[in-house]
Amino acid sequence: MDFQTKLEHLAELAIRVGTNLQYGQRLNIYAPLESIELVRLITRKAYQAGASLVVVFWTEEAIGLERIVHSQDEFLTRVAEEPFRNYEEFTQRGDARLRIRISKPEVFANADADRMQVISKATNARAKLSLDKFHSSMVNWSIVPFAVPNWAEVVFPNEAPDIGLEKLWDALFMATRADQLEPVQAWQQHLTQLEARRDFLNLQKLQRLEFKAPNTNLTIELPVLHRWEGGSAQTINPNHPSSIRYVPNLPTEEVFTVPHRLGVNGLVAATKPLLARGKIIEGIVMTFKDGKVTEARASKNEQTLLQILELDEGASRTGEVALVAESSPVARSGLLFQETLFDENAACHIAMGSAYSYTIQGGDSMTNEQLLEHGANNSQVHMDWMIGSSQMDVVGIRADGSKLELLSAGQWAFEV
Amino acid sequence: MDFQTKLEHLAELAIRVGTNLQYGQRLNIYAPLESIELVRLITRKAYQAGASLVVVFWTEEAIGLERIVHSQDEFLTRVAEEPFRNYEEFTQRGDARLRIRISKPEVFANADADRMQVISKATNARAKLSLDKFHSSMVNWSIVPFAVPNWAEVVFPNEAPDIGLEKLWDALFMATRADQLEPVQAWQQHLTQLEARRDFLNLQKLQRLEFKAPNTNLTIELPVLHRWEGGSAQTINPNHPSSIRYVPNLPTEEVFTVPHRLGVNGLVAATKPLLARGKIIEGIVMTFKDGKVTEARASKNEQTLLQILELDEGASRTGEVALVAESSPVARSGLLFQETLFDENAACHIAMGSAYSYTIQGGDSMTNEQLLEHGANNSQVHMDWMIGSSQMDVVGIRADGSKLELLSAGQWAFEV
Repeated sequence: MDFQTKLEHLAELAIRVGTNLQYGQRLNIYAPLESIELVRLITRKAYQAGASLVVVFWTEEAIGLERIVHSQDEFLTRVAEEPFRNYEEFTQRGDARLRIRISKPEVFANADADRMQVISKATNARAKLSLDKFHSSMVNWSIVPFAVPNWAEVVFPNEAPDIGLEKLWDALFMATRADQLEPVQAWQQHLTQLEARRDFLNLQKLQRLEFKAPNTNLTIELPVLHRWEGGSAQTINPNHPSSIRYVPNLPTEEVFTVPHRLGVNGLVAATKPLLARGKIIEGIVMTFKDGKVTEARASKNEQTLLQILELDEGASRTGEVALVAESSPVARSGLLFQETLFDENAACHIAMGSAYSYTIQGGDSMTNEQLLEHGANNSQVHMDWMIGSSQMDVVGIRADGSKLELLSAGQWAFEV
Repeated sequence: MDFQTKLEHLAELAIRVGTNLQYGQRLNIYAPLESIELVRLITRKAYQAGASLVVVFWTEEAIGLERIVHSQDEFLTRVAEEPFRNYEEFTQRGDARLRIRISKPEVFANADADRMQVISKATNARAKLSLDKFHSSMVNWSIVPFAVPNWAEVVFPNEAPDIGLEKLWDALFMATRADQLEPVQAWQQHLTQLEARRDFLNLQKLQRLEFKAPNTNLTIELPVLHRWEGGSAQTINPNHPSSIRYVPNLPTEEVFTVPHRLGVNGLVAATKPLLARGKIIEGIVMTFKDGKVTEARASKNEQTLLQILELDEGASRTGEVALVAESSPVARSGLLFQETLFDENAACHIAMGSAYSYTIQGGDSMTNEQLLEHGANNSQVHMDWMIGSSQMDVVGIRADGSKLELLSAGQWAFEV
């Protein structure tokens, strides 16, 4: 199958599986400049599927870098209002939303961390005002990847640039199933399996998860109202009574739920480097007590990690815990993508910061205060980091104290 | 001088001469994806000059082309609201505005003209609602060029692609004076000369202009309150009492004013092809009676021309008349740029459609009805087309019937 066919498959998956764009819906695409070739194909597929309008909001990190380096100090807290106003309007109206994800590891590697922190704080605080108004399932949204040379260099450091880029594309096509003859059908099969695990876990009413691996011995209590999610999601929008099924990430291999914000205890070590704020944070080790990080270390870019944990009260607690088997295509590729969209599908992970309201039963119609009461964390941050490996065992404990093996040596330990 | 230095000069001119960005001002840049290298330099210069925030709105015609070809008929009249809401907010607040202009001749050459017309009508009608709310001097704005391969191919059809692109850059740098050692100083000298011609013409109180050339014999009456403009402009914004001097176009070589909307008579032929809606219209000849086109022909893409003239009542009348000498750097280059920003600086021209309110004395505070009464045309269109050449003579006639030679064989015929 040639490159162009696979790229068209990816575009088709973005429209038919990821966003599942409905006839007459407007589609807003957020895309880096480099991804024009894919965006053009997606736009075509969207109009063919009956999009009423496709609008692209292009992004480019170089512009942000100029700001970090050259802005006057007094203006670093300025935030443009209109992207957030747009977000609120689009969400209320129920427009479909698609994001094209590239990775440019270390684009901000040499940028002044303190100046970045000032900008991030102001931007995140403004973003949170808009994000708090709506739960994330108001619209059908998705994220799909695009390969760029910088990214390929990091994933394939020993290859010639053009070979590396080709190999990265191959990996992306494989992980998103765009290389299959009937990609939409392949996705339906995959989703069926993933959702069976999710539904099984929801029937278990687990109270607690225990993660064991070298340097990791972590206990995570789950809120009484926790819900396991994974595979496809469903929109809930008062302006649009008929719900739309969508898949938030291509690829997706995880089932996930919400830790109790006061119920995380023990030691946990990262199994992969973490790309955050354009810097690669390596060798993370954290200690939790009653849900909160009491000690955090990293062997590289520790300052960036600490700044993120200090952004607000909730940034040093967890909002998500996800199970991923080592048999996932992303894990099997054996690659380190340095990009959460991929690496979170290769390993179990937890997220610092906010919980998804839909991982609490009835959470979509709760206030932030109610969510906190039920144990779901709140923050302007949501940062996944990888803790799984082929040496990890995960056990679930039910209310009656009985145990259920979830993962053994990184592989699924229960049948569905 | 190397390419990088000249590109930095162009960025500096955009900030210090074009927009003349003030300390603490926000700058909104509208730029095609291809121009990232220049946009990055401009962003840097802007922050160094004290921009409070630089926001880039990226544009890409390929996305529009997909819509023309693939959208369902019923959605062709849909218009995104937020760009216009942004425009109104930015204008009221007094943000500086910069546009990066590239030319992609014939990008829409094969697109269905009727479908394009449906989209254009809806978009232009919405745009006019916003444009009518504010006069164009509310903010300091400017347009600067950027060379791309497609454009170079059209300007230098017989050169190898890389040589053509290099030659186009040389032409752009020359025309914008970015190739000079002290480009800001060079611009101040140039503006002084252009403004001396403008001020001289304003003292003449001309009643009428007569254009004579092969295939052209055109009389243009000027409104009693007409004002000649050219060189730099000054902002008038009630929210910002201190006026900012700015230069709307780099390059700019014209002095221009407003024809009386009922006072254009005779025959006039284009001296250059016109790029409109992504199509090149060639061999335009129009006949005017009492300000209105009574016959319009073109040897190529006549349908596109006729569709533009039919967009509304004002589209078949004129809103601007401009004098340009054949001694201008753009004219001396001998090149046909297929891009109004350049070609309008190489030849006398008239514009179909709306007048600039500031070319009527006190026009900035007049209603549309008052402007019409004073002879200034109104339309959703403003389309310049070139009528000047080295065979053109232009004469001005004063109220007392005395004559003033303005251009003779395409060259300035009066001293200042």
